[in-house]
Amino acid sequence: MGAVKTKRMPRAVREQQMLDAAVQIFGQRGYMAASMDDIAELAGVSKPLVYLYLNSKEDLFTACIRREATALVAAVRAGVVAGLPADRQLWDGLLAFFTHTAGHPDAWTVLHRQARTHGEPFAAEVSALRAEIVDFVTQLIAAAAREAHRDPDLPEDEVAGLAEALVGAAESLAAWANATEGVTARQTAATLMNFAWAGLGSLMEGRPWTPPPASAP
Amino acid sequence: MGAVKTKRMPRAVREQQMLDAAVQIFGQRGYMAASMDDIAELAGVSKPLVYLYLNSKEDLFTACIRREATALVAAVRAGVVAGLPADRQLWDGLLAFFTHTAGHPDAWTVLHRQARTHGEPFAAEVSALRAEIVDFVTQLIAAAAREAHRDPDLPEDEVAGLAEALVGAAESLAAWANATEGVTARQTAATLMNFAWAGLGSLMEGRPWTPPPASAP
Repeated sequence: MGAVKTKRMPRAVREQQMLDAAVQIFGQRGYMAASMDDIAELAGVSKPLVYLYLNSKEDLFTACIRREATALVAAVRAGVVAGLPADRQLWDGLLAFFTHTAGHPDAWTVLHRQARTHGEPFAAEVSALRAEIVDFVTQLIAAAAREAHRDPDLPEDEVAGLAEALVGAAESLAAWANATEGVTARQTAATLMNFAWAGLGSLMEGRPWTPPPASAP
Repeated sequence: MGAVKTKRMPRAVREQQMLDAAVQIFGQRGYMAASMDDIAELAGVSKPLVYLYLNSKEDLFTACIRREATALVAAVRAGVVAGLPADRQLWDGLLAFFTHTAGHPDAWTVLHRQARTHGEPFAAEVSALRAEIVDFVTQLIAAAAREAHRDPDLPEDEVAGLAEALVGAAESLAAWANATEGVTARQTAATLMNFAWAGLGSLMEGRPWTPPPASAP
């Protein structure tokens, strides 16, 4: 009876279970070592069903990258409230980013490491995600410049460069935080805020950027 | 006569010529598309000689990664003078880094993109390079903290995080600068100094970090 019920589960739900299992296996073992048998077993389905729904290991991996990239971008966008001061928007965005990568370490490994380690088609999927996040950060920095009436002094190239620097720093820190015992998403976001907003120079002079109080313990 | 002379060239010189050609072909076409025929032709040697000296495409690629990683680390270390103030050391290091990546775009593509895109053994080679640079930057930041007598206030974890952020930002910016027309190494280094030292916050208030005057035009 249970088996019959399981089989009648809608395809969309089944697919998500397969992707959940695949992200976990790909993230923990790497793309090459991951087997479709293990993914099917962890998802609680037959291997032919995985192939029927998701076609091949390559397509399954691509589906994982797309789903996790979309989820990460959505989490960052959901964390940021338009209209707040730029430093607050940046802080909220970073906190949302590091909270998501800390909460989904296998997904972050798939996006940051696996997808870039196994060939061009996968790397291109991640490039698209990255371009969207860089664009979002570029707009934030440009908005901050407008707030401070610094528009004419900050050339477009420099804003683009700052956005690239910030995204590169965030990617690097997310991997480091997930690999380092006892570092919280909030601490990681504060480290990057100190770096990006207050600046190392200010930080060294004892003037760190102060995050707003946490709403929950 | 010329041919005889060429054949008597020392092995070490020949190998460097093969690596020069390989870095160019790998960087411009990617690891998969690069052919040993093209590499041998560009190096002006026979394909069997490439195999004799460097064994396989995999080993040739690994040799490229090692040589270029060593050269990049050496360039950064050579650019920094111990004993100068920390912000000056950081500036000199960044300028050396971006000058090297701009002057060796194929080598940077091999290290930053190709090596991470084609499997674990190559990615591990680059990780070792990266760890060395992160370590170097960590020491710089710790030295800056000591200079400013901020030792007890800056926990080890935060220094490590700042170094990760800075290296990630530099990697990201190097790729961006090489792909963006008309951006110089000096401008790229200044962008990252603004970001890292003066901080975005100070930058927005019109207080950018000012690089020392260029010694040559």
